[in-house]
Amino acid sequence: MPGGTDQTLRPFLWRTERLYPDTEIVSRTADGIKRYDYTDYGKRVAQPANALEDADITSDARVGTFCWNHARHFETYFSIPSSGRQLHTINPLLPDEHIQYIVENAVDELLFVDPSLLGKLESSHDADAFSSVEQFVVMGDAVPETTLNAVDYESFIEGHATEYDWPSLSEEKSAGLCYTSGTTGKPKGVEYTQKMLWTHTMATLTPQGLGIDDSDVVMPVVPMFHVNAWGMPFSATAAGAKHVYPGPSPTPEDIAQLIEEERVTITAGVPTVWLGLLEYMEDNTVDLSSLEEIVIGGSAAPKSVIKKFDDLGVDVLHAWGMTEMSPIGSVARLKPEMEDWSPDRQHEKQGKQGLMVPGVEFRVIDENGEEVPWNGDDFGELWVRGPWITTEYFERPEANEEDFEDGWLKTGDVVSVDSDGYITIVDRTKDVIKSGGEWISSVELENALMAHTGVAEATVIGVPHDRWQERPVAFVVPTDNTDEESITEELLELLGEDYPKWWLPDEILFIDEVPKTATGKFSKKDLREEYNDSSLVEGKAPEESARESE
Amino acid sequence: MPGGTDQTLRPFLWRTERLYPDTEIVSRTADGIKRYDYTDYGKRVAQPANALEDADITSDARVGTFCWNHARHFETYFSIPSSGRQLHTINPLLPDEHIQYIVENAVDELLFVDPSLLGKLESSHDADAFSSVEQFVVMGDAVPETTLNAVDYESFIEGHATEYDWPSLSEEKSAGLCYTSGTTGKPKGVEYTQKMLWTHTMATLTPQGLGIDDSDVVMPVVPMFHVNAWGMPFSATAAGAKHVYPGPSPTPEDIAQLIEEERVTITAGVPTVWLGLLEYMEDNTVDLSSLEEIVIGGSAAPKSVIKKFDDLGVDVLHAWGMTEMSPIGSVARLKPEMEDWSPDRQHEKQGKQGLMVPGVEFRVIDENGEEVPWNGDDFGELWVRGPWITTEYFERPEANEEDFEDGWLKTGDVVSVDSDGYITIVDRTKDVIKSGGEWISSVELENALMAHTGVAEATVIGVPHDRWQERPVAFVVPTDNTDEESITEELLELLGEDYPKWWLPDEILFIDEVPKTATGKFSKKDLREEYNDSSLVEGKAPEESARESE
Repeated sequence: MPGGTDQTLRPFLWRTERLYPDTEIVSRTADGIKRYDYTDYGKRVAQPANALEDADITSDARVGTFCWNHARHFETYFSIPSSGRQLHTINPLLPDEHIQYIVENAVDELLFVDPSLLGKLESSHDADAFSSVEQFVVMGDAVPETTLNAVDYESFIEGHATEYDWPSLSEEKSAGLCYTSGTTGKPKGVEYTQKMLWTHTMATLTPQGLGIDDSDVVMPVVPMFHVNAWGMPFSATAAGAKHVYPGPSPTPEDIAQLIEEERVTITAGVPTVWLGLLEYMEDNTVDLSSLEEIVIGGSAAPKSVIKKFDDLGVDVLHAWGMTEMSPIGSVARLKPEMEDWSPDRQHEKQGKQGLMVPGVEFRVIDENGEEVPWNGDDFGELWVRGPWITTEYFERPEANEEDFEDGWLKTGDVVSVDSDGYITIVDRTKDVIKSGGEWISSVELENALMAHTGVAEATVIGVPHDRWQERPVAFVVPTDNTDEESITEELLELLGEDYPKWWLPDEILFIDEVPKTATGKFSKKDLREEYNDSSLVEGKAPEESARESE
Repeated sequence: MPGGTDQTLRPFLWRTERLYPDTEIVSRTADGIKRYDYTDYGKRVAQPANALEDADITSDARVGTFCWNHARHFETYFSIPSSGRQLHTINPLLPDEHIQYIVENAVDELLFVDPSLLGKLESSHDADAFSSVEQFVVMGDAVPETTLNAVDYESFIEGHATEYDWPSLSEEKSAGLCYTSGTTGKPKGVEYTQKMLWTHTMATLTPQGLGIDDSDVVMPVVPMFHVNAWGMPFSATAAGAKHVYPGPSPTPEDIAQLIEEERVTITAGVPTVWLGLLEYMEDNTVDLSSLEEIVIGGSAAPKSVIKKFDDLGVDVLHAWGMTEMSPIGSVARLKPEMEDWSPDRQHEKQGKQGLMVPGVEFRVIDENGEEVPWNGDDFGELWVRGPWITTEYFERPEANEEDFEDGWLKTGDVVSVDSDGYITIVDRTKDVIKSGGEWISSVELENALMAHTGVAEATVIGVPHDRWQERPVAFVVPTDNTDEESITEELLELLGEDYPKWWLPDEILFIDEVPKTATGKFSKKDLREEYNDSSLVEGKAPEESARESE
């Protein structure tokens, strides 16, 4: 059999460590800005790899991280997968019960955890769920008071060799793991093989992906637990670019300062982040002269944001993807012939989910199982396939049957495609609400509401919100003799026991009946159309974002 | 096992056919410029795929091409591999005997051949060697008089469906085949799997590869039988770029005209081509305003060429690769901090073989098997590995033993690496001469010379040549009583029987003894140092290039 060597992450690190030894990795921390170069990084990746071995962590163990965006977290991005283990990034914004389930399901042997997230981890701590975890490593140089069996990161790696003979791994080896919240049931794990990470990295480097080069300064604001910060730490390494990590809970001011001082050229995050920056810039002067591109994903990029940044000389790259897609599928770059269009017409295109990057194939399937024409009107479910798109969930055969067919991933997004090939999401087949780039399961909230004796039927939908893109609103059909005023309080308390504050509906409305489809199912489409009005939730969302609230 | 769908060429064609239906493919032909768009291309790729099936060509057959750079040849780049077959591009500049061997060794079932190359194919024709070939298809709409069983391309595809249900192929399937002339013995075949072509394509798209985008107009002057024109037809397709094919034997005027009229942005070829263009520009005004990059490979790019194009506002990208590497390994792009350097210092760097692209690993091994330091002085043999670098030759186990070790390809190039990581070729461990980007085997010539009774010893080296980069010079130790004057004619006649005119040494020098190494081998290094002087062959090379002479 001819064929080259396996596709793994190793060459990316090897190359940049050797060709760009002085390129910096910058990290905002509680103690100010920290920086070191790729030579140091190479050593600081070797040390934890040696430490994991010495700690008797299995050679192909899953190792969890429970961290914000910083250099130590980035060190785990290579030390774990390149030593043959599996990097399992855990979303600390999830309900406790989900975190328990995820750690239990993944059987993580060790967890790296941020000092600021220790409390959340303790509250999620459940002896059964965490029984596989032999060691907690706190991302700092000291361990705060904790009930967990923890050591600090610097002590964990100290004294270990700064070289590691990175093995030749099979490209089919599992290298990453990320859970995605579904509509029903438990979160589903998506494994990333070495090959998936390799192919995704190469695709993002291309000019039709993110086009990252060695002259770039890359700052992922999107959390590193969100599908590896959309793969940017790997892409920036492969390109030999400078990395900037904004640390825990960066404010708009922090983000502005990092862009200015580190001369960031490309950054990425959910719309809420950029709305925040624009708001901050209303009262403050920020030098964006270094900034070339903002990648916006996770939720639809508002056209106003695209326009405002365009006026400031910054291109917004609206990207679409999924946890199942490693995650990038499409990027709304303009085609060459559109360069002469009016700004308005350009922003219209840039607001779409965009063009699939080279390597991905898609089709749009209507209710009759037929492909829809690319006319911008007809719509159907988007199916995708490609080398970095998974073809199964981790140990969830029943979910596989639902979401995959003949190698295609059925995305659950309902889209139209215009005659230029740009995709637009028009609806979701799945009941999820996206608040500030984070998923809220409407079905979970509904089940919790209907568990109350005063509730006959309940349904939860997302309504548009200026800052968070969507916020949940509950529609409740009370049983007879229920007092609407008192039950509202009770219901919110009930939900608050199991779910974080940012999951709670901003409004509970009482109705006589939930609209039904012909087959008797809740028809959320009707409710969504009727309540497609941001005034319903205006000023009612929690002030703190999901991120800041933790 | 998690993991995405296989890495094949199919999505590249699918995407561009759908997203860039109006983008053009332009071809210079004997009847002038022909052009069509990707919609047409998609149909014209489906038709031959259907025709191959109807002609009962085995579903995984090897199918040869014996063609220059034009749209019909480009059609075979997808119709053959995407239908599951193997695209075998044959170099028509090789000695007849090599061509016979190659077709016999590959067992090609069908050969696509240019009208202008029919004569060469007929002269190479040997009933045994070509016995596997069931059909010759002439790349035109009529068949010139020929002894071969031939049909013209348009008749071959006419009436066949313009759609084809491209199968889901394994990424391990052989998709391409190209032979490389070695130092001794027969040419060696290098197979390209679907995955190798996919990974090479993605690597060339990255900004540190060739950085091809949908706004580019790509013109490969490098022949399509040279490692798939360095992969550019695949890269341009994946990017949705416009293609320009310069047809058979383009003159500098043809090249200039195509750049001007088609607004070429990126082109590629061996140094001789660009020397020719610069020479032409001494007496003619050429508008190079569209041109951004010239990729120079095959032989070292002279610094004067880099400087002259830089003065004209065109970046020369010096690239290095091998048939075994699909072929691109390194590209001499400047690092960001070098942008401020003086032009002279920049050209120095750009004249090196450059930086390995993301995905490739290398090491430089000295005589003691140790890695040499990156100091620009120490040198050793360059070893490389990566997903698009082969790990074996086609059916040549004895050659495998020599050229591969632990997944590394031993390139035979002796290099130093400077402290910035730029590679410079300082010598070859293998005895080959590169004339105008084509290989001449010195060992074959030596053996042929020594077959003459008047020759005691003979050795052939390449000496520098302004236009062809290297030209062969023979050193002959005559036997006693040999008349040097008469034997010179005899030897050239002898070589002329088996080898093309451009292989013949420009000079035969008589010496008393061939310098030997300590172990008694011919020491060409000494001769190369002594005769490192282009005046030796100045004005003596055949006027026509290898390409033009055919």
